[in-house]
Amino acid sequence: MAPTVQGRRVAVEPRTRPVMRDAFVEAVRAGGGELAEPETAEALVWADPANVDAFPAVIARAPGVRWIQLPYAGIEPFVDHLDHEHVWTCGKGVYAAPVAEHVVALSLAGLRDLHRYARERTWSAQTGRNLLGARVTVIGAGGITSELVRLLEPWQVTVTVVRRLDVPFPGVDRVVTTDRLHEAVAGADVVVVACALTPETTGIIDRGVLEAMADHAWLVNVGRGAHVVTADLVAALDEGLIGGAALDVTDPEPLPDDSPLWGHPRCLITPHVGNTPEMGLPLIARRVRENVERFVAGEPLLGLVDVDAGY
Amino acid sequence: MAPTVQGRRVAVEPRTRPVMRDAFVEAVRAGGGELAEPETAEALVWADPANVDAFPAVIARAPGVRWIQLPYAGIEPFVDHLDHEHVWTCGKGVYAAPVAEHVVALSLAGLRDLHRYARERTWSAQTGRNLLGARVTVIGAGGITSELVRLLEPWQVTVTVVRRLDVPFPGVDRVVTTDRLHEAVAGADVVVVACALTPETTGIIDRGVLEAMADHAWLVNVGRGAHVVTADLVAALDEGLIGGAALDVTDPEPLPDDSPLWGHPRCLITPHVGNTPEMGLPLIARRVRENVERFVAGEPLLGLVDVDAGY
Repeated sequence: MAPTVQGRRVAVEPRTRPVMRDAFVEAVRAGGGELAEPETAEALVWADPANVDAFPAVIARAPGVRWIQLPYAGIEPFVDHLDHEHVWTCGKGVYAAPVAEHVVALSLAGLRDLHRYARERTWSAQTGRNLLGARVTVIGAGGITSELVRLLEPWQVTVTVVRRLDVPFPGVDRVVTTDRLHEAVAGADVVVVACALTPETTGIIDRGVLEAMADHAWLVNVGRGAHVVTADLVAALDEGLIGGAALDVTDPEPLPDDSPLWGHPRCLITPHVGNTPEMGLPLIARRVRENVERFVAGEPLLGLVDVDAGY
Repeated sequence: MAPTVQGRRVAVEPRTRPVMRDAFVEAVRAGGGELAEPETAEALVWADPANVDAFPAVIARAPGVRWIQLPYAGIEPFVDHLDHEHVWTCGKGVYAAPVAEHVVALSLAGLRDLHRYARERTWSAQTGRNLLGARVTVIGAGGITSELVRLLEPWQVTVTVVRRLDVPFPGVDRVVTTDRLHEAVAGADVVVVACALTPETTGIIDRGVLEAMADHAWLVNVGRGAHVVTADLVAALDEGLIGGAALDVTDPEPLPDDSPLWGHPRCLITPHVGNTPEMGLPLIARRVRENVERFVAGEPLLGLVDVDAGY
């Protein structure tokens, strides 16, 4: 059972990141809450992801706080402060949409050769393919995949999801288990890596998978750099084994300046910008507003942290 | 009243462009038609957009043809051959979807700085904005706009359509007439030009409009190059008056190699690839199949040409 808590007075602390605090203060008010000092607050919204050190002093001033909202997708930075005396929520699920949007941006850029056009200084050959009606294989069955399927709903794409367990995924055409990855990528126009990094998925994109892909297909990685065997990818791009690779994550990261992937005719690198701080602020602010509405109404909060499980 | 014609035997001529002819022959058969020589055909599908000169000889061999399907979006190249003895159809509306997709590709590339990342040789600053939830103003109320609205349906964008007449447009938030263009672009994150080129719309994007746009906004042009006053745009980009410009059409076109727009930090040029021949072939082939189905069934054909109006 999800614990519910109810109240109205919400502190937004610390004040070391004014842009975020201002957005959260507005969200608290828009959600029907009343801005309060920690001393009288019933809830606390943490307003500086980089300033965890300030937490003990703030919470010591806030004996009436029952609910704490954190600004992260996960709770790793706060793991030392978690307790059973408060209800904790974080930004779980909030940041998947911008990353899914980046998958669409990178897929379109790859299929339509925007990386090449951006580098041209002359009116060059007219090349490019449609994402409309394309076949898309997504490795991973989490929030990014859900959002991607939602965003592409009108695009008439055929989606294959690759996941560990043979469990259906809503809105897609086919689910293939990880042990049949080669079969899942064959014939796809775009192969998206959007899974968690685990021992099983480290290096999952290797020479064999790249050989199984169509020679026009693009690889889009928004997972972690280590999902891809970089040397195998560089060789595949050099040989024209696949159409290209659009990578928002690299191994190592940051990608060193001497990497052959920079400026490669078949490669587009973005510096881990699926979700930038600028993009994330309105999204987490909306979550704050929604949770304040729920707090005022005594309804279950979104993004509840399981303190014992640590996520 | 749309005239209907019925038959089964379809000629696909000329044979000077085998890739297109093969696709159309397959479409005729998939639509329930029977491939025929011109001499016995009841309909003719024209299979080489670049070879209009062959038409008189083909039609002279084809006295039984009642319906002629052209491969173009418009009928300009065939205007000298149009007559009232045949029912003429063209590819009207078929090519809007890829162009609308290109609008999304260019909007995402601009807002997310992909043009800059494509040129980098180092892990650079993390910048970019979302198209998700953005405000989009589209100048033009034709097929491209309809398709764009359809593709962005799950993206929670706020769409303003600018059109000549104050007539509602399905699925958008606001319609603004052309005389209030400055008001329509103010506050937009993306301004899309997707209207026809007429004396009224030539140079519609001038210094005044660029000044009315937000300083982070991107201009996306998939209409015609002459919609934009190029000198005004170059100045606006140099001054940082707007976020940037993604242009699939230019004035002049092709854009000369000495244009300051090539490689401009606020500009992405694509060489008129909203719809490439490679993208268009499956789309027009699908139209051929649909129309053959209708021809066989005696139902009204799609993309009927008004011979007197000339479109």
